[in-house]
Amino acid sequence: ELLQSLQSLFEAPRLAGRRVLVTAGPTREPVDPVRYITNRSSGRMGHAVAAAAALAGARVTLVSGPVTLEAPAGVERLMVETAAQMQETVMAHLPGADIFIATAAVADYRVAQPAQQKIKKQGDTLDLQLVKNPDILALVAASGDRPFSVGFAAETDSLEEHARAKLENKRLDMIAANDVSGGQGFDVDDNALRVFWRDGDCSLPRQSKVTLARALVQVIADRFQMARGQN
Amino acid sequence: ELLQSLQSLFEAPRLAGRRVLVTAGPTREPVDPVRYITNRSSGRMGHAVAAAAALAGARVTLVSGPVTLEAPAGVERLMVETAAQMQETVMAHLPGADIFIATAAVADYRVAQPAQQKIKKQGDTLDLQLVKNPDILALVAASGDRPFSVGFAAETDSLEEHARAKLENKRLDMIAANDVSGGQGFDVDDNALRVFWRDGDCSLPRQSKVTLARALVQVIADRFQMARGQN
Repeated sequence: ELLQSLQSLFEAPRLAGRRVLVTAGPTREPVDPVRYITNRSSGRMGHAVAAAAALAGARVTLVSGPVTLEAPAGVERLMVETAAQMQETVMAHLPGADIFIATAAVADYRVAQPAQQKIKKQGDTLDLQLVKNPDILALVAASGDRPFSVGFAAETDSLEEHARAKLENKRLDMIAANDVSGGQGFDVDDNALRVFWRDGDCSLPRQSKVTLARALVQVIADRFQMARGQN
Repeated sequence: ELLQSLQSLFEAPRLAGRRVLVTAGPTREPVDPVRYITNRSSGRMGHAVAAAAALAGARVTLVSGPVTLEAPAGVERLMVETAAQMQETVMAHLPGADIFIATAAVADYRVAQPAQQKIKKQGDTLDLQLVKNPDILALVAASGDRPFSVGFAAETDSLEEHARAKLENKRLDMIAANDVSGGQGFDVDDNALRVFWRDGDCSLPRQSKVTLARALVQVIADRFQMARGQN
């Protein structure tokens, strides 16, 4: 790792002068003042991507849900809790962003009417009505003067089919997909990714999230420069 | 803190030869392979109580839901995820326990039918049907040859009324209550407690969870010895 850090000192920084906006971690959607719905995202992949983009010379803003990780060196990190707060913070930092990398596992649904008091255990059953959250990535990709937009997909089955459907439907420039069928990818140190764009794809084999994120940022930088006609 | 540790060396260990079973942390109730319902419990109070009981000479087993804390020195810690797993592990370790201290914020409800595959974002709304979880503390307090049973209550209103109702309904020996109306008590380092038993109560003022736990264990040891007629 030291060797890689040293090597990177002698390479031209691929993203020098670029602004990169990254989301990471889960969101928490309150049920009442103490309970919430969330997911198994640790935020490690997003933090590693933010660190890798900074290492590649970019000015990086990381918008993170609740995680127990330190902020990566040289990265501006903004902590949020709910999907609504993540949307607000991302939108506020969108102007001027060249690349948007959405690694966060944003809750698809929130509780329609969170209780203001702790819900008492009463009936034998409880019906929780959920409503769909805004799709932050799709909103960013649909915005005027949109950044190069990269999504993440965690899939338990039909990985390429589901990932390519998201690439199309959300009008993304790229999507990185991983197989979480065996709990893989969530809350672990290692990961593997398949990366898809309109007319191509590549596979990044299983490795630590830190080195995987560096490889992914290289792929993103390549495609970003192609898209901007700078290659 | 060093001074307190030294002092405790010269005091007779209040719980020498006693077996204490403690629960801590939240539980996670799966919605699907990646999503779950949980709560803001950090497990700090329970870990501090387990450490304090060990310091008081007890042999301590700590059954903890998912937390980011280290196991306290000299404590046997068993990690679980769901309320069902916590129940199973507590019941397996109940025989021989003298004192049971239930600090865990066990989920009152679980999802009736967790999905085997990750739920796809489809409709604009989603109805989540929850069913009541077993009440581990009430089961322990109702068991034959029951240990001295101490509950915890996090309340947003009518603290004494709600706490005394739990003391009665679950047939506890003692209950420690804290006010979480302002987010207080959950996921913070400080806490204050009011402790109730059938014919008395005491207040433990705001302090670090570490010193608060030591004070609470002294109160528990007092009442335990009264109950066992050893005072």
